[in-house]
Amino acid sequence: MPLKALALNATLKTSDAKEASSTDRMIGLIDKAMSAHGGVTEVLRLADFNIKPGVTSDEGAGDDWPDIRAKLLSADILVMATPIWLGQPSSVCKRALERMDAFLDETDDQGRMVSYGRVAAVAVVGNEDGAHHVSAELFQALNDVGFTIPANAVAYWVGEAMSSTNFVDLDKVPKVVATSVEMLARNTVHLANLLKAKQYPGEGS
Amino acid sequence: MPLKALALNATLKTSDAKEASSTDRMIGLIDKAMSAHGGVTEVLRLADFNIKPGVTSDEGAGDDWPDIRAKLLSADILVMATPIWLGQPSSVCKRALERMDAFLDETDDQGRMVSYGRVAAVAVVGNEDGAHHVSAELFQALNDVGFTIPANAVAYWVGEAMSSTNFVDLDKVPKVVATSVEMLARNTVHLANLLKAKQYPGEGS
Amino acid sequence: MPLKALALNATLKTSDAKEASSTDRMIGLIDKAMSAHGGVTEVLRLADFNIKPGVTSDEGAGDDWPDIRAKLLSADILVMATPIWLGQPSSVCKRALERMDAFLDETDDQGRMVSYGRVAAVAVVGNEDGAHHVSAELFQALNDVGFTIPANAVAYWVGEAMSSTNFVDLDKVPKVVATSVEMLARNTVHLANLLKAKQYPGEGS
Amino acid sequence: MPLKALALNATLKTSDAKEASSTDRMIGLIDKAMSAHGGVTEVLRLADFNIKPGVTSDEGAGDDWPDIRAKLLSADILVMATPIWLGQPSSVCKRALERMDAFLDETDDQGRMVSYGRVAAVAVVGNEDGAHHVSAELFQALNDVGFTIPANAVAYWVGEAMSSTNFVDLDKVPKVVATSVEMLARNTVHLANLLKAKQYPGEGS
Repeated sequence: MPLKALALNATLKTSDAKEASSTDRMIGLIDKAMSAHGGVTEVLRLADFNIKPGVTSDEGAGDDWPDIRAKLLSADILVMATPIWLGQPSSVCKRALERMDAFLDETDDQGRMVSYGRVAAVAVVGNEDGAHHVSAELFQALNDVGFTIPANAVAYWVGEAMSSTNFVDLDKVPKVVATSVEMLARNTVHLANLLKAKQYPGEGS
Repeated sequence: MPLKALALNATLKTSDAKEASSTDRMIGLIDKAMSAHGGVTEVLRLADFNIKPGVTSDEGAGDDWPDIRAKLLSADILVMATPIWLGQPSSVCKRALERMDAFLDETDDQGRMVSYGRVAAVAVVGNEDGAHHVSAELFQALNDVGFTIPANAVAYWVGEAMSSTNFVDLDKVPKVVATSVEMLARNTVHLANLLKAKQYPGEGS
Repeated sequence: MPLKALALNATLKTSDAKEASSTDRMIGLIDKAMSAHGGVTEVLRLADFNIKPGVTSDEGAGDDWPDIRAKLLSADILVMATPIWLGQPSSVCKRALERMDAFLDETDDQGRMVSYGRVAAVAVVGNEDGAHHVSAELFQALNDVGFTIPANAVAYWVGEAMSSTNFVDLDKVPKVVATSVEMLARNTVHLANLLKAKQYPGEGS
Repeated sequence: MPLKALALNATLKTSDAKEASSTDRMIGLIDKAMSAHGGVTEVLRLADFNIKPGVTSDEGAGDDWPDIRAKLLSADILVMATPIWLGQPSSVCKRALERMDAFLDETDDQGRMVSYGRVAAVAVVGNEDGAHHVSAELFQALNDVGFTIPANAVAYWVGEAMSSTNFVDLDKVPKVVATSVEMLARNTVHLANLLKAKQYPGEGS
């Protein structure tokens, strides 16, 4: 049975925006590479949903997070994909991470968070500078809430300093990007398979 | 004429939430210290507003940002106040910063952003760890969009590692916090007065 | 055969300093927990060595990095342990990470860095605030140079905001710290065993 | 009398290295722009000195920091210039910042650090990605130790994602870089003049 991956696109634009999402293009590359290694990716665009502010798993009437959370926990792999604004992850990305804060208290009787055994990778796209910092913040937040980070778990593209070209408008995906996407997919699927076969031990083991 | 300060409270809770906001308590301390030095503070709780995702100054029907932006630009001082979640600023705080990204293109005929001449300070409150990083991200983002940062421009409180006490529940404000709030207010008002009297020169000057 | 862990203590103090190292106390806790799970830890204090500035694996005469690098590559686990200064990792820690930058070009014929298959965990100790940011920077840097990060891969202690107590002077290790150390050791050893048994696939696989 | 600026070049290379320093090229641009606005810049290459690890202002025999510190305190402006490695500031840069940690305890009888009244700007150069994060860390650390940050206080250049071109090898300085250098110099000199004429008030004022 193939692994399931959930990709969360944290662009500020909803799906019905006129302009295409650069973040979406990167997710597409990852999706294709994952599938070559036996992973099936579902993509959600977070801006299409009403994800209420808060740090619990259900913030009440009208909150779309519980459904997204269910999909996340039914997947083996999380691909957190975000644009860069001011050198930092988007507010939409931060909102989703905040909601995962709830995992800290959602542990089994051996102290393992509900997210344990899942592998997370990161995709970052921007006109310019910020990808390393974004991956740093995402790795830390995702690791804090129970995810495992495979080797070279980030795929990114940014232009030269203070450029304004969008990734979605590049004629051709640069070879270095294609290589890192391939590496990310290969490593993520490998590690997810290992952990699926042999989950982390719990307290007292 | 006293200086005007705008404090943006980026707690995840709206004003009608049952629990008091720790961030609000810190803002209250800063407000009091500012007023002793000749600043009048208006406080807005960002979660009360519909701040649409985007990076322009007006994201259309229903967007509350244009009014907040107008208040921001009519003030001399911005106090950006945020709780810490997962060691990072709140999504509500990030949303407001994203909207200020528009300042990058809003320049006068001498290349100065519309925000120039304004001074920004930062307030950070959390159960535990994260204040330095939050101030780093805020200083950088606010500086990128044209704000000037006075010496010792952050007031913060966090508990010991992995604690769960809230700042709002402390019987007494720790002396180190009171001292840093006083320092922040003194420096911020001083610098705002200097820049109000003598704005940055523009291109070609 | 037990797993081998190498802990690098990035305190600014050499081993013959009068004061004990708080970072060393945290490493001791991790060492003990690792050994309960089948890991044997060697500890190096980086300030005892002449690690030359640079980004190659050998910076010439007098450079102690090649020996440390050899130990690192003969281990299955890296524990990067650093104090916090100004909310950030120590310069000694940064020096070691810079030297690992060389791994980016040290790949096998299938594109895998020489560091692949190794698991990294992080220990952070400070008087106050900064642990999340330090772990973010370390996770990102270590992941970029090929390490895999297990779930909850950081153990840290910091005091309340602007405190001056040292971890080494605490009468008792707080229970939350002991729990996180245990979790870190359990997860790190588990993941290192999985990867030792089944290394990441390379390019073209 | 012209303002004095001290630029600290935190490249990993000493002055007698064969390759030219990209960081040095950026400092040269800033120096020229500063001088047009009435600032005289002295440049020190930190790797040429023995800056001992520690957080005091004098770490004893052989420590070159006391002399650098004296120059820093006799200047009105600090330009902290660093290359990017792994998306982060250099270890040489971190070492200098650590030594400024001592300023936290070096206050006058009105609680003002010895560094007060000085303005800091930042220069960042790398093959690729990392400038925003580096400026964030530097702004925070420099602000914590008493420096004031003028509007748009960073000048940077980085290439496209995963590029390997050095700034020093560019035929021509990109126009956006020249513009931001000019802005940095103009704002830094302006603010330094304001603070030189009217220092921050102290406690009790």
